[in-house]
Amino acid sequence: MVSKLNKWHIILASNSPRRQELIKGLNLDFEIDTLNDFQEHFAPDTPFSEVPRLMSEGKSLGFHRPLKKGEILITADTMVILPASEGHPGEILGKPASLADAKRMLGDLSGRMHQVITAVTLRSAGGMRTCTDTTDVWFKPLTEEEIDYYVQNFRPLDKAGAYAIQEWIGYVGITRIDGSYFNVVGFPVHLVYDMLDDFDLEK
Amino acid sequence: MVSKLNKWHIILASNSPRRQELIKGLNLDFEIDTLNDFQEHFAPDTPFSEVPRLMSEGKSLGFHRPLKKGEILITADTMVILPASEGHPGEILGKPASLADAKRMLGDLSGRMHQVITAVTLRSAGGMRTCTDTTDVWFKPLTEEEIDYYVQNFRPLDKAGAYAIQEWIGYVGITRIDGSYFNVVGFPVHLVYDMLDDFDLEK
Repeated sequence: MVSKLNKWHIILASNSPRRQELIKGLNLDFEIDTLNDFQEHFAPDTPFSEVPRLMSEGKSLGFHRPLKKGEILITADTMVILPASEGHPGEILGKPASLADAKRMLGDLSGRMHQVITAVTLRSAGGMRTCTDTTDVWFKPLTEEEIDYYVQNFRPLDKAGAYAIQEWIGYVGITRIDGSYFNVVGFPVHLVYDMLDDFDLEK
Repeated sequence: MVSKLNKWHIILASNSPRRQELIKGLNLDFEIDTLNDFQEHFAPDTPFSEVPRLMSEGKSLGFHRPLKKGEILITADTMVILPASEGHPGEILGKPASLADAKRMLGDLSGRMHQVITAVTLRSAGGMRTCTDTTDVWFKPLTEEEIDYYVQNFRPLDKAGAYAIQEWIGYVGITRIDGSYFNVVGFPVHLVYDMLDDFDLEK
């Protein structure tokens, strides 16, 4: 299986060190190339669950050059979604604009379930395929002291939803997940592996 | 919270590098001391779900010296349990005895749900408390090639159930978990944090 996949030339178009680390864990050879013309945007009435797919395919199609035979381009997009509940219309949580915004987001996540959705797109010269993976994540009620400690000692600003599950706040605050852990980290590796396996048969 | 916990002298009695790494992630100061007289054993009719608690408390009470005021000893025990199903009586999966045994275990886990249970014990000079955490884990159907690849390229022999979720087999084979991820790694840090917080108030 691993040897079969290694006959492809895999290109990962992601700056995320977490994604690069996870794809390394699949024991595949790959190249990183993040040159891209895609401008992230979507219509305001787009259903939340469709946004990661649109972003991931946009990144794929915005790759800076045509793909050669034998190349597979991998792009991905992860979003944190707060489902609608009493008194809250639901919301996509992107990267926070400021430390105050990060505290607001963590306050919104505290004591509730949210969803992490990642879309993964594989594209070759001959075709494109996107799959998504969803994980439900539960935070315990966080104290103001815990939120302050995290925001002041870690880097919430480059993270959708202002947190990383593999950091202190994930250790102390997340009591349960239902779905793939690596999806919450930002790259559902089991799905990537399956997609690569299928893609191989298609071409 | 973190500063409050750091007034205790925490002793971790575990050789597991994974547990040591995870407790570091709580940003607590601690000492490692694994000197212990405990012999692991339990009556054959002990209910599976009680075994981790017995082992964890046994390790705690077998610590090589009395605890001083202000010290908290942390011990833990993780077990992989295959629930009973049609044609299978259920089983505790410990560390495999050989590579062949590791392959047999991974074959048993393939395409099914199993449970990972960790018991954590905190003990001071004045008292002892144990809590357990359970996570359901689903493996996709693994191919013989995938099992062979893992067993030959990784170290299944020192792992209960012959796998680690944070290694290749976990990346490609685990499609879903329900519960705490870090519990599957071997140390439910959210529970340890809560227990330390409560323990502080008790004494």
